[in-house]
Amino acid sequence: MDFFFYPSSVAVFGSFRVGAIAYEILRNIVEGGFEGRVIPVNPKGGTVEVAGRVFEIRPRLEEPVDTAIIAVPARMVPALIDEIGPLVKGAVVISAGFSEVGNEELERELVEKARRHGVRIIGPNCAGIFGVHGRFFGSFEVRVKPGGLALISQSGAFGGAALAMGNDEGVGFSAFVSYGNAADLNESDFLEYFADDENTKAIALYIEGVKDGRRFLEALRYAASKKPVIVLKAGKSASGARAAASHTGSLAGSYEIYRAAFKQAGAIEVEEMEEVFDAAKAFEVYPKAGRRVAVITNSGGPGVLATDRLEKLGLEIAELSKETIEKLRSFLPPQCSVKNPVDLIADADYERYRRTIEVVCKDENVDSLLVICVPPIFIPSGEIARAVIEADCSKPVIVNFMAGELVRDGVELLEGAGIKNFPTPERAARALYWLSLR
Amino acid sequence: MDFFFYPSSVAVFGSFRVGAIAYEILRNIVEGGFEGRVIPVNPKGGTVEVAGRVFEIRPRLEEPVDTAIIAVPARMVPALIDEIGPLVKGAVVISAGFSEVGNEELERELVEKARRHGVRIIGPNCAGIFGVHGRFFGSFEVRVKPGGLALISQSGAFGGAALAMGNDEGVGFSAFVSYGNAADLNESDFLEYFADDENTKAIALYIEGVKDGRRFLEALRYAASKKPVIVLKAGKSASGARAAASHTGSLAGSYEIYRAAFKQAGAIEVEEMEEVFDAAKAFEVYPKAGRRVAVITNSGGPGVLATDRLEKLGLEIAELSKETIEKLRSFLPPQCSVKNPVDLIADADYERYRRTIEVVCKDENVDSLLVICVPPIFIPSGEIARAVIEADCSKPVIVNFMAGELVRDGVELLEGAGIKNFPTPERAARALYWLSLR
Repeated sequence: MDFFFYPSSVAVFGSFRVGAIAYEILRNIVEGGFEGRVIPVNPKGGTVEVAGRVFEIRPRLEEPVDTAIIAVPARMVPALIDEIGPLVKGAVVISAGFSEVGNEELERELVEKARRHGVRIIGPNCAGIFGVHGRFFGSFEVRVKPGGLALISQSGAFGGAALAMGNDEGVGFSAFVSYGNAADLNESDFLEYFADDENTKAIALYIEGVKDGRRFLEALRYAASKKPVIVLKAGKSASGARAAASHTGSLAGSYEIYRAAFKQAGAIEVEEMEEVFDAAKAFEVYPKAGRRVAVITNSGGPGVLATDRLEKLGLEIAELSKETIEKLRSFLPPQCSVKNPVDLIADADYERYRRTIEVVCKDENVDSLLVICVPPIFIPSGEIARAVIEADCSKPVIVNFMAGELVRDGVELLEGAGIKNFPTPERAARALYWLSLR
Repeated sequence: MDFFFYPSSVAVFGSFRVGAIAYEILRNIVEGGFEGRVIPVNPKGGTVEVAGRVFEIRPRLEEPVDTAIIAVPARMVPALIDEIGPLVKGAVVISAGFSEVGNEELERELVEKARRHGVRIIGPNCAGIFGVHGRFFGSFEVRVKPGGLALISQSGAFGGAALAMGNDEGVGFSAFVSYGNAADLNESDFLEYFADDENTKAIALYIEGVKDGRRFLEALRYAASKKPVIVLKAGKSASGARAAASHTGSLAGSYEIYRAAFKQAGAIEVEEMEEVFDAAKAFEVYPKAGRRVAVITNSGGPGVLATDRLEKLGLEIAELSKETIEKLRSFLPPQCSVKNPVDLIADADYERYRRTIEVVCKDENVDSLLVICVPPIFIPSGEIARAVIEADCSKPVIVNFMAGELVRDGVELLEGAGIKNFPTPERAARALYWLSLR
């Protein structure tokens, strides 16, 4: 499926007036810096200007391209696939108006034409795809920063919102696919593909229901054996399942069966949308972590909140060795607590943070570190960020810098160094919990 | 205690070199627009420039003021209180170095001097106070926008972080108090005070432990009878309680007893930091809401996530009346779902949202509405925001607009109209849950 996510040439079909779907997709592809050929196609011809470049709109596709992106009226799609079939490897069908509104026949026809030509289909009724490392933004959704997360979403709207919000939250993406009605390729195909995609470090999957449970379980197991797979299942409650059935036409099925399948396959099930981002951020940086956590903080309250949450999630508050405690005692001011959570108190500076992280990191009783900083007015958050970045520690370090505008500099420095910040102690604790499940 | 939260004159004691605590507090008071008298005091005299104004630093306080804010070394505090006792009604002691580091004697002396003069004390070892509606920012913490939440925090760092983050999240504040060691005034006094403060619509309380359980229960019950009280208890786990004990000196006590007390008093207990903001936002706007919720969305997936969460929290997905369903059917496109969750599909515009909200709002089976919008590229979020704002509906409406940068305009419009946005479907659902507990 490289022709979808790393294409060297694409054609976009639809209307190219400003604001139309095909126009927006073309704009995203061009502005996103795609380096391959891009061909807008519409029978009416003409030209379209995007990002300062003028493209000739071809009345029809006449040369081979890797992928077609199709946003023409539904009833015209099967004939178009038949026409361009010999020239394309894959087609992403954005157009809606197929099985999701009862037009099963039209969808069947679409698949038939595609199969005849050996063309693979994503969609129809989908929001498109991104291959972020190939700078290919084949969707109207907000472009995102490159990173390790491949997002597979049954719901286009969920996918779009998750891309925009994840981008804001500091998640980096390798790819995105909204697969809509899954007439041809479905969640299992994408799980298998991203399991082997080397730019993808973790996979996040939003599903309401799957059609082939056995295949899904196999694909999920395969993917989870290769890298972390984060799953958010919607339609768990009775009312939610009914709602899912009415809008995708797919039966959500018994949640208990899904839940067992996720567990059996080794996937990480999260409970809500925000947790998708948090788990993704953790797994973008670390493949896993042990269960014994050391908390290092400059403020008691947030340290206690982190400790409460870690213990509630079943993690262990690591018991620091005597050697560690003695070393910490040797350089920390007497008001500091050298038990776990280690409290460096409010005036903790670069040196105090860095040395503490390094000493605690070497403790054999410690598997991972949770470093909290609520910067006091007299110490800039960037200074503590540098301490975290420059500390010599080979174990997973999860960071919670907090206080809105006061930590923006620090968080920016951390992110520049590839360290993700979690906005509250509890969200940081949950990140360590997910890492401990691998 | 109005002299603390609505003072007409204040004196600040400490060092006024740039970056020092007293300087930063003076700066916050002046920049915050305090209209009363502000007197910096330091035996060395001199002048200090803040926000373009030059203040003469008085070597000693010689005229009466409502409140003193004290950031001088701990050992000098009791004598200072004795000296200014005849001139002040209250003193906020920022200085640390009292019972929290074992100096019980010094703290006792401080309280004795204060009692002798009838001066009330907040602190010591605290981060200060805000009376936001009196434009009095008597703390070095980030200034916040005015609104209905009074935040009472045992932890200064938690309080500071919560102010900065709450401000970012759209929470409006009436007051803030970090009460530190609670040598004189404590959480119970503040609960009682804010229960009767007319600018305060909801109270949020962060506690690790209280000294007088019976008094606390009474104060909590009184406050909760007047307005919503949101409580975050830290030190719930065994390790958390030990950590709390080590940094505040107060015993966290058995969490089960606290939990029962919160319930008995009618307080709203939340589980983590982020939930404090979400609950506060809900209660700033609505005093309560019924249990039967209608979900209105333009995108299936997020609607399903909201429905799942509502049902999990024990709320009811309202069954719309036949009349409502018929009315919706009369103007909604046939692809829309007129069952709850009502799915207006992606191209829902101003008119579709507004009419739907109005029709659903009139249904007798509906107590509250959860309105979700994931804006498609061709409909600006501001348009849907206006529909929510202008819809004629007298029941609680909780809003979840999402997709990062794509909804900033809409969220800004909503906030300008006093409607709070919740960033995910699940967080919006929890807001309705808390409202249903009142």
